Amino acid sequence: MTDIFKAPERLLMGPGPSNTSAAVLAATAQPTIGHLDPDFQRMMEEVKDLMRYAMQTENPVTFPISAPASLAMEAGLVNLLEPGDTAIIAQNGVFGGRMADIVERCGAKCVLVETDWGKPIDLDKVAETIKAHPEAKLLGFVHAETSTGAESDAAALCQMAQEAGILTLMDTVTGLGGVPVRVDDWGVDITYSGTQKCLSVPPGLAPFSVSQRAIEAVQARTTKVQSWFTDLNLVLGYWSGGGGARSYHHTAPVNALYGMHEGLRLLKEEGLEAAWERHARCHRRLAVGLQGLGLEFVVDAPHRLPQLNSVWVPEGVDDATVRGTLLNEHGIEVGAGLGPFAGQVWRIGLMGDTAREDNVDRLLSALSVVLGRGLKAAE
Amino acid sequence: MTDIFKAPERLLMGPGPSNTSAAVLAATAQPTIGHLDPDFQRMMEEVKDLMRYAMQTENPVTFPISAPASLAMEAGLVNLLEPGDTAIIAQNGVFGGRMADIVERCGAKCVLVETDWGKPIDLDKVAETIKAHPEAKLLGFVHAETSTGAESDAAALCQMAQEAGILTLMDTVTGLGGVPVRVDDWGVDITYSGTQKCLSVPPGLAPFSVSQRAIEAVQARTTKVQSWFTDLNLVLGYWSGGGGARSYHHTAPVNALYGMHEGLRLLKEEGLEAAWERHARCHRRLAVGLQGLGLEFVVDAPHRLPQLNSVWVPEGVDDATVRGTLLNEHGIEVGAGLGPFAGQVWRIGLMGDTAREDNVDRLLSALSVVLGRGLKAAE
Repeated sequence: MTDIFKAPERLLMGPGPSNTSAAVLAATAQPTIGHLDPDFQRMMEEVKDLMRYAMQTENPVTFPISAPASLAMEAGLVNLLEPGDTAIIAQNGVFGGRMADIVERCGAKCVLVETDWGKPIDLDKVAETIKAHPEAKLLGFVHAETSTGAESDAAALCQMAQEAGILTLMDTVTGLGGVPVRVDDWGVDITYSGTQKCLSVPPGLAPFSVSQRAIEAVQARTTKVQSWFTDLNLVLGYWSGGGGARSYHHTAPVNALYGMHEGLRLLKEEGLEAAWERHARCHRRLAVGLQGLGLEFVVDAPHRLPQLNSVWVPEGVDDATVRGTLLNEHGIEVGAGLGPFAGQVWRIGLMGDTAREDNVDRLLSALSVVLGRGLKAAE
Repeated sequence: MTDIFKAPERLLMGPGPSNTSAAVLAATAQPTIGHLDPDFQRMMEEVKDLMRYAMQTENPVTFPISAPASLAMEAGLVNLLEPGDTAIIAQNGVFGGRMADIVERCGAKCVLVETDWGKPIDLDKVAETIKAHPEAKLLGFVHAETSTGAESDAAALCQMAQEAGILTLMDTVTGLGGVPVRVDDWGVDITYSGTQKCLSVPPGLAPFSVSQRAIEAVQARTTKVQSWFTDLNLVLGYWSGGGGARSYHHTAPVNALYGMHEGLRLLKEEGLEAAWERHARCHRRLAVGLQGLGLEFVVDAPHRLPQLNSVWVPEGVDDATVRGTLLNEHGIEVGAGLGPFAGQVWRIGLMGDTAREDNVDRLLSALSVVLGRGLKAAE
């Protein structure tokens, strides 16, 4: 027989998931009710309102996608793009590359604007590319690159796109709740995020918000959206009905949404500005400590995301050994590098509930022990 | 400020979700850990083993899709079909119709074989259609139609397909755990289910199993799978590594998977045969009681799914009033009819943890009160 699984206690300081609070977990463990139950539907309306607060938007079409953020990325692209369309994708890490892959699966043409990993998206290059491609329908970019910890200037990117009359798709999976995300001020057309980063809700859902302009673009399509599950025309029948009859689309992940409701509620209770300041404060404390240990940041100071700190693995230190020791002896998870950064970089997350001074101190103390030993072993 | 959401206590006797046990909810509420944590990956291997037991298969590629079963349907179709392919879809309810819709979104040709709602799929018609379409690549069908409560002869359908050398895609969202599902004996190529029916795990995940023949078909494609998120070539890098390095694909829904592990573990502890017998026993008790109340089944006795009982709304009784009264005064959820059955049919679920004699009695007693009053009001 299989034993009951007992999850170990971990301090989650990687690129997500972050630690989830007892309140969120308790919410998740409430009895399941029906996805068409009037009580559940009232809660859904609150989730949508709370999401609008977190994303600083009044977009009526703001709802959680019932899947991880990767599917939200796909949902945005398959709804906006038709075969033959052109999309400009600004890439400065793993997730921009994923956007480009999906654009091609839509039968659309992808114009890639590459910036070196660890740097914010090069605005001049994007401006030139927009100029060179007047046929482009969409500019896709990652606001907060989870693979590097660099923040890009989302406001400037959106402004360029608007001036050229093209739509924007913004990935702020790692941004939301940790740094300002101002969907309406910036004028983003499709914004998506994840629950397991600075919202500190278990992974599995993706906040998603759509502007009026994007809705019109979806309605103006001449071909069907290639995905049934993410076709906004269908999803909205369930999610957007306010008070009226909701049509069945799929069975919403009821308990996961309880947790999301509580996570967003706690964020509103703390206040967005206070949450941003808490992330910034913990980041400053971490940065001082890491520099004391001789570790160097991948991203230049003005572009660092406080919630995701990438540092170079020091010469002579084995990446996997250090991460393994932190996990097994200290119960702390730190993230590995992705793609070209594999083995070269550690990604230290200070996201949501994890962003507490005592957690910063606990990591710094453990790192100093492990690195001291690790360096000796390599000598 | 938004209040904490307090879920009401409901007896879930609709078409899903079903009631979730305290053990499953407690598992779900354990602390979140990383999706690449060695402890989590050990649990994942157990989830896959437990799924193989539940589905009666040795398919190595058996894993949970990180989304509701609707996306699993789409995953099966987009992986097996390429533009220009032909798929035969046997439809006898809502979900076969959804398959047909997705087939067309794949750029494939859909040959629809329709059977009246409430009846099992007409085997002769399917046989004729297979004969008339030697170019067909796939036969898709719903084993246990959630919209009607009819069970189709999955073994016979698979045998026909195999004799013609075509692949099979089987939806057993409502079947798994409630009636026998024998993936290997039947020779199904892609099988998917949901967690929120007879497994009594909160909604949001979809058990998915792929035969060797189907994997070869995916590998033999000449075009890319149109969905990045569900492209089996990519998903398997994360889910199928046994002991070796796992590549990052998306962040798995960690806490939801804790719950799934516990739900499947409890099913194995009870034993599949015992679970099937429990569903059958409760169904017999319910059928006797419903007949006593003068209610008539939609599906003929030999084809009834014990876990989903569709009955006609009696003449002169208002569907929504009765369901509303059951919910608000008795705390019992019963399902409405879908599509052409809207307003005509109630769907009474006896799924997973809900399938207990005391629940049957509680519903019968409430129904007798409500119907007695409802009939009087209509007089």
